[in-house]
Amino acid sequence: MKLVLATNNKGKVREMSEILAPYEIEVISMDAFEHIGEIEEDGDTFRENAVKKASITCERTGLMSLADDSGLEVDHLGGAPGIHSARFAGEEKNDEANNTKLLQLLAEVPAERRTARFRCVVAVAVPGGWVYTAEGTCEGVIAGEPRGDGGFGYDPLFYLPEYGKTFAELDPGTKNKISHRAHALAGALDILSELKKVEGKE
Amino acid sequence: MKLVLATNNKGKVREMSEILAPYEIEVISMDAFEHIGEIEEDGDTFRENAVKKASITCERTGLMSLADDSGLEVDHLGGAPGIHSARFAGEEKNDEANNTKLLQLLAEVPAERRTARFRCVVAVAVPGGWVYTAEGTCEGVIAGEPRGDGGFGYDPLFYLPEYGKTFAELDPGTKNKISHRAHALAGALDILSELKKVEGKE
Repeated sequence: MKLVLATNNKGKVREMSEILAPYEIEVISMDAFEHIGEIEEDGDTFRENAVKKASITCERTGLMSLADDSGLEVDHLGGAPGIHSARFAGEEKNDEANNTKLLQLLAEVPAERRTARFRCVVAVAVPGGWVYTAEGTCEGVIAGEPRGDGGFGYDPLFYLPEYGKTFAELDPGTKNKISHRAHALAGALDILSELKKVEGKE
Repeated sequence: MKLVLATNNKGKVREMSEILAPYEIEVISMDAFEHIGEIEEDGDTFRENAVKKASITCERTGLMSLADDSGLEVDHLGGAPGIHSARFAGEEKNDEANNTKLLQLLAEVPAERRTARFRCVVAVAVPGGWVYTAEGTCEGVIAGEPRGDGGFGYDPLFYLPEYGKTFAELDPGTKNKISHRAHALAGALDILSELKKVEGKE
């Protein structure tokens, strides 16, 4: 079964491909299509953006498409950077600049008030205007300095007290079990696995 | 949301449209497409035929497609006519000839051994090779003579003791609640309604 991943973010493509690998799903990246074009993420919520990306990609490829929109919500910043996570430090997407800005904003904030969560909404769109969404979160704390070089985005600053590691220090197998994206995809997989049920008894 | 009904059987289109009406699903009949062509029902099971019809229609229309394959299983005839229900009396589909043949085969069979069931398998196919199936049955008895002029196919002979009526005598609203097709579609609707879930809370 084919599924288009509606993202140009190589980190997301890698993670989602790893999570979907056991499900006999042929993941197709956007590179396979020449004329998809940019899709502006101008929604007010993760859900709006995910639905928009999945729906437009589905329309343009004619195949079932899955998109995610995700971001970091820092409690001390009232939920920022949220849907602006990728462009927190400026119009150009820059993980390092985003992390630096976040550390500066939290410079005087003690550990116990650096709570945060990653949130992810996954949308699955099917030709004909059908769309389904699922959401996942992962709770953590913003570290005092970047640690680790796995993952992408804010991962080096996202510290999980129960593991004593940041997302960037966790092995990918563990991250792909506990992350916001893993939880959101698990919801989508409930639908995807239903859609494969052909081998039932007559 | 659009859904193509992969059948040329006007009775099935009417029934499925009635059953799907409350779900805000825009049902598109095969008449809307010029080049679908005939799809040969050469499978060994209802499931195989339903999957084939839904998959090919989905491929040719580019839209999510729903097909059913269904038939009558008469216990005294070892499950016949089964997948051959539509062409029981000959290559040309003919409801009246089929009913006449069935009555002749059961002419000497007393009421208590005229048990039968309608069976329906519904397949939902999604562009990209995804397919889902659901099954439904309805138990009844083959009447001694045709009664009623609603429904289609073997409905005038399919008697429901608990209603004291044949399928052809039942009002459509009741038939659409208890029929094999209603039960199979209910299974498909579980998936279809999941695929519409966008309005969840952020």
